[in-house]
Amino acid sequence: MSITVVGSIAYDTVKTPFGERERMLGGAAVHFALAASFFEEVCVVGPVGDDFGEPQLEVMRARGVNVSDIERVQGGRTFFWQGEYGWDLNSRETLDTQLGVFEGFQPKLSDSSRASDVLFLANIQPDLQREVRSQLPHARFVALDSMDLWINIARDSLVSAIEGVDCVILNDAELRQLTGKPNLVAAAREILTWTPSDPSGPGRGPSVVVAKQGEYGAALVPPESFFALPAYPLESVVDPTGAGDTFAGGLIGYIAAHPDEAISDELLRRAMAHATVLASFNVEEFGTERLQRLTGKEIVARIAELHSMTQFTSASLSLRG
Amino acid sequence: MSITVVGSIAYDTVKTPFGERERMLGGAAVHFALAASFFEEVCVVGPVGDDFGEPQLEVMRARGVNVSDIERVQGGRTFFWQGEYGWDLNSRETLDTQLGVFEGFQPKLSDSSRASDVLFLANIQPDLQREVRSQLPHARFVALDSMDLWINIARDSLVSAIEGVDCVILNDAELRQLTGKPNLVAAAREILTWTPSDPSGPGRGPSVVVAKQGEYGAALVPPESFFALPAYPLESVVDPTGAGDTFAGGLIGYIAAHPDEAISDELLRRAMAHATVLASFNVEEFGTERLQRLTGKEIVARIAELHSMTQFTSASLSLRG
Repeated sequence: MSITVVGSIAYDTVKTPFGERERMLGGAAVHFALAASFFEEVCVVGPVGDDFGEPQLEVMRARGVNVSDIERVQGGRTFFWQGEYGWDLNSRETLDTQLGVFEGFQPKLSDSSRASDVLFLANIQPDLQREVRSQLPHARFVALDSMDLWINIARDSLVSAIEGVDCVILNDAELRQLTGKPNLVAAAREILTWTPSDPSGPGRGPSVVVAKQGEYGAALVPPESFFALPAYPLESVVDPTGAGDTFAGGLIGYIAAHPDEAISDELLRRAMAHATVLASFNVEEFGTERLQRLTGKEIVARIAELHSMTQFTSASLSLRG
Repeated sequence: MSITVVGSIAYDTVKTPFGERERMLGGAAVHFALAASFFEEVCVVGPVGDDFGEPQLEVMRARGVNVSDIERVQGGRTFFWQGEYGWDLNSRETLDTQLGVFEGFQPKLSDSSRASDVLFLANIQPDLQREVRSQLPHARFVALDSMDLWINIARDSLVSAIEGVDCVILNDAELRQLTGKPNLVAAAREILTWTPSDPSGPGRGPSVVVAKQGEYGAALVPPESFFALPAYPLESVVDPTGAGDTFAGGLIGYIAAHPDEAISDELLRRAMAHATVLASFNVEEFGTERLQRLTGKEIVARIAELHSMTQFTSASLSLRG
């Protein structure tokens, strides 16, 4: 019942108003895997270069992550990203991106990775997402992330990739850009109407859209309902890098940990709560620092807090008019 | 047990991607009063000019609003605002502001307005807010709104005004600007530490901060807890003008309708839900159009929907690590 994730494994150099770190462990697949590892075994598929160290692999192994499909490319350099955040952490500037071994990456999945029943296609070129998707045609639940770059330069392929998954996880702005609809609910509902143009391909079209809203939380849009959660309130946010992938790890991990439940609204809502809580821990410190020493007990305690922060009683009242 | 509101009564010319309206009824006090009128009688205090018509007064009277403290200034012109919204309605440009009778406005409260036990100081010059506040020294609950202009040019007076109220209702960006703190929770908590510099004045300093977050909803920050609600999801938003004041009207109105309850966290949360729902109706049509034909039954139905959209069960799960 394990989870397979394909995506970037990276070194990140990050500066925020609260400090900076050089070449720390990062990448979408890494943040996802650490979060999802609290729920299920995760197989990470992605390339690294000669410069990727044993201590970085050990961070993942220590959380029970299966790293045997991390491909070390001889003579290559690990994907590198450098960015700096503005004073309120809501804006960031990319200062450097070096694709390294990601250029020409062809995902190679072992039998073990192909045996997972849950798949997360982190933000990579959509042709690669489709290629990996086709290798797990019978997966119980498949989700996908993407970014503005692919909407701009590879929209057709991204739309095809989306048609093959169950769940689309994007930022508000990306949902608007992808659909051309300024209204978030309308944008999400449009994506839910997409079905595979090639009926022989995997999937039946997405059945749920998750809109990530940064410091405001996230919304869940299935065809017939709506659910939203605020972000867990923190007085100190240090580094938002990887929050979205950590969120996805909590969401997909929770679903994978419930193999005998149908993918109901109710299951998805609980998964959203776990996603929100995982993401809140991630941003408390730089990179993977907080997740590395996070405990299940801390997650459970924060879920209870989040629950208490979102409840109200709907007492009746006779209104004037 | 009525509510007094002091603030602008205006004509608004508004253009959104969905249409435009010229010189429609608007203003903070009007939007507030129409929303609060579903809960309690509201006395509106504010000036209008010769150009303010009987049909506009009738819109308020039809909802049971007390308009006897609306002062008609002979030879004056009603406050006028003209603005245009961007494609996703999250940005707007002010094209024209004509203060008219608001220039030199001195609030005159009748005995009836002074007898209210709940007071809302809509966004006006903070000296005027303090002047009105001092005329209701024994009010049970006093709330205040403001804007970036007053933070820029009259911050000291605004801080004094805030020290005299129970509840501060501001946008996220205004809370950050007012406190210089980029973190929203930290900004709100700082305001909760403010106490009157003149102990002989009314109030004991704010006990709750409400952060308005536009399409993302709103957060409630009392000293020891936190609560947040998403906006009610709408596939069609036509005109956001007045949403914040309508929100405040729902919030303050709900509190006023419960004179025998302490201002508890639980009461405030229910008030937030009503605020959210009132605001959601307001933005469905231009200006006051939707509120004019809104019914209590519609409000109650949408409260139940909002409740169902924010609930999740916190089932336990044994986590790995």
